[in-house]
Amino acid sequence: MENRYWSEALRGIQPYVPGEQPATPGLVKLNTNENPFPPSPAALEAIRQAANADLRLYPDPDSRRLKDAFARINGIAPECVFAGNSSDEVLAHAFLGLLRHARPILFPDISYSFYPVYCRLYGIACETVPLDGDFRIRVSDYARPNGGVVLANPNAPTGRALGLDDVRALLQANRDSVVLIDEAYVDFGAQSAIALIGEFPNLLVTQTLSKSRSLAGLRVGFAAGQPGLVQALEAVKGSFNSYPLDRLAIAGGTAALLDQEHFERTRRQVMDNREWLAAELARLGFAVLPSLANFLFVRHPAHGGGALLRALRERKILVRHFNAPRIEQYLRITVGTREQCVQLVDALRDLLAIEQQPSC
Amino acid sequence: MENRYWSEALRGIQPYVPGEQPATPGLVKLNTNENPFPPSPAALEAIRQAANADLRLYPDPDSRRLKDAFARINGIAPECVFAGNSSDEVLAHAFLGLLRHARPILFPDISYSFYPVYCRLYGIACETVPLDGDFRIRVSDYARPNGGVVLANPNAPTGRALGLDDVRALLQANRDSVVLIDEAYVDFGAQSAIALIGEFPNLLVTQTLSKSRSLAGLRVGFAAGQPGLVQALEAVKGSFNSYPLDRLAIAGGTAALLDQEHFERTRRQVMDNREWLAAELARLGFAVLPSLANFLFVRHPAHGGGALLRALRERKILVRHFNAPRIEQYLRITVGTREQCVQLVDALRDLLAIEQQPSC
Repeated sequence: MENRYWSEALRGIQPYVPGEQPATPGLVKLNTNENPFPPSPAALEAIRQAANADLRLYPDPDSRRLKDAFARINGIAPECVFAGNSSDEVLAHAFLGLLRHARPILFPDISYSFYPVYCRLYGIACETVPLDGDFRIRVSDYARPNGGVVLANPNAPTGRALGLDDVRALLQANRDSVVLIDEAYVDFGAQSAIALIGEFPNLLVTQTLSKSRSLAGLRVGFAAGQPGLVQALEAVKGSFNSYPLDRLAIAGGTAALLDQEHFERTRRQVMDNREWLAAELARLGFAVLPSLANFLFVRHPAHGGGALLRALRERKILVRHFNAPRIEQYLRITVGTREQCVQLVDALRDLLAIEQQPSC
Repeated sequence: MENRYWSEALRGIQPYVPGEQPATPGLVKLNTNENPFPPSPAALEAIRQAANADLRLYPDPDSRRLKDAFARINGIAPECVFAGNSSDEVLAHAFLGLLRHARPILFPDISYSFYPVYCRLYGIACETVPLDGDFRIRVSDYARPNGGVVLANPNAPTGRALGLDDVRALLQANRDSVVLIDEAYVDFGAQSAIALIGEFPNLLVTQTLSKSRSLAGLRVGFAAGQPGLVQALEAVKGSFNSYPLDRLAIAGGTAALLDQEHFERTRRQVMDNREWLAAELARLGFAVLPSLANFLFVRHPAHGGGALLRALRERKILVRHFNAPRIEQYLRITVGTREQCVQLVDALRDLLAIEQQPSC
């Protein structure tokens, strides 16, 4: 489809491939790390209220209410907050505005597969740093000259998290470049590095309402950092789209942030279900990486990830498999409701039993 | 605020400055070309219906329903349609994906002031081509080697439109580069170049729901062109943010496109009000450029644009003034409801009368 009108930078580009959003109803959808619980009722009501004649007017280009709510919850100043149309957009602006330097940026070989895509889009040099044999990030591996460091914490698709001490050590070893900690999954048990932004002028932390606030369909993401970094994101945003957040996203996102009771209750349920599911999968013979996210990364010694994915799909259960080096044996399974977790475990038990029957 | 962590590309950047979105109630807001009429009731209802538990799920990354509706209305195939989070985002993707070449791109010296901002952000060489003395685009000025041509039609802030014959002549003279026609204001009386996309593989047309569909607060924009161009935009989008349109924007935008009756009625009212306002302003001594947009670009022989803007602001009426060469004497005035137009004319009549009184 490429033709002579395309910019040179775009030729041969490989866009990120998101997990399937099936039109078929009745599927157990454990493939894109969505929250199985509905969003805050207060958020839904705020959206309905905002669906009024004022939609004829542009939104607040600064999303002031939304940033204020995020700042308040995190105990930081509003000028330390950037808001965008999903944390993917926020990440894109950070790559262009803060991570394009002469030296290559560093990120793990196994991580969110959008990072190399941003690099390709913006012509950013990058190098991947291998996770250790247990898929852990060793922060000492990042103590070398670089144009920036990007880590997902917890990491995806492994689910493994670094503690704040490790993040601090990483920051202390990288004072000359931006360290971006992508905390899409932080609310399911990990520690947020937002606690460190006062200490480190080179720390940028991104978060999203897609996972722990059950609002993947609303597209709201944030960055937190010192004003020197936040202003770089504002400069990119103001040169790209003055109003990235629509009136409904500002209204719904603000209400969701302020409903801490719903947030606490639903994230605890996700964490409880995760622990239950991890134990059940271990019982079925799976190796289960310790996860502080809303998904598990698992491998069965006798069954490849791709084969299991297809067999589950036939049973109307969607999970995710990455056809990539080191992880092609694995499945990434989103933590669902308890009922969905039970359906998954039953289906896997059934599948494994069939496979173990003698073939004649 | 710039510091050593910023990417080199960002240093000295001058973001686009959108018109003010005031928090003060009770202002007559004629400064950002919003539609004075509310959006389609069907669109508002569709948004309310979509404010449900499914917001926990990602949207359709392809915005299929929305693209289909746009395609149907315009009588083109769905694969000729791209959708984004406002036409500003669509324009940004087009600049990066289709307009970054060795040769400079061309656009008028007086046009949407976001164009040079995109060029700066993405490192695109550009040259401006002067409008003629009556602020008209002469298409023959663009018949020279270039990396692309970008024209707003109707042009902003002048309101002047090119006919399809001129657009065709422009395309015939520029077969080797992309011609982008930005039709944000086309529905108020101009002719859409979408009629020409079958003939010209280098034509990209952008449109928005912000103006003629009264949905500036929802952020929905489109591009139409042959699949070879649309796929370039999809490649940028897929390398930037997989889901730029949230579930509410897809639902509301689709319903708005399908409510043609509301669209026809409200755009006719805007056009009627424009003609009334143009006549009244002429009667007050203003030079009024012929406009096919939802705004007028006017100049008073005895009063500067900046002074008039401030005097109107004191009377709680907001209009827009551009402190830029050749147009600093002008005001851009959005066409409001008839009542708002009357308020504006009364305020101006009053202001001009005061100024004409002898000073002692």
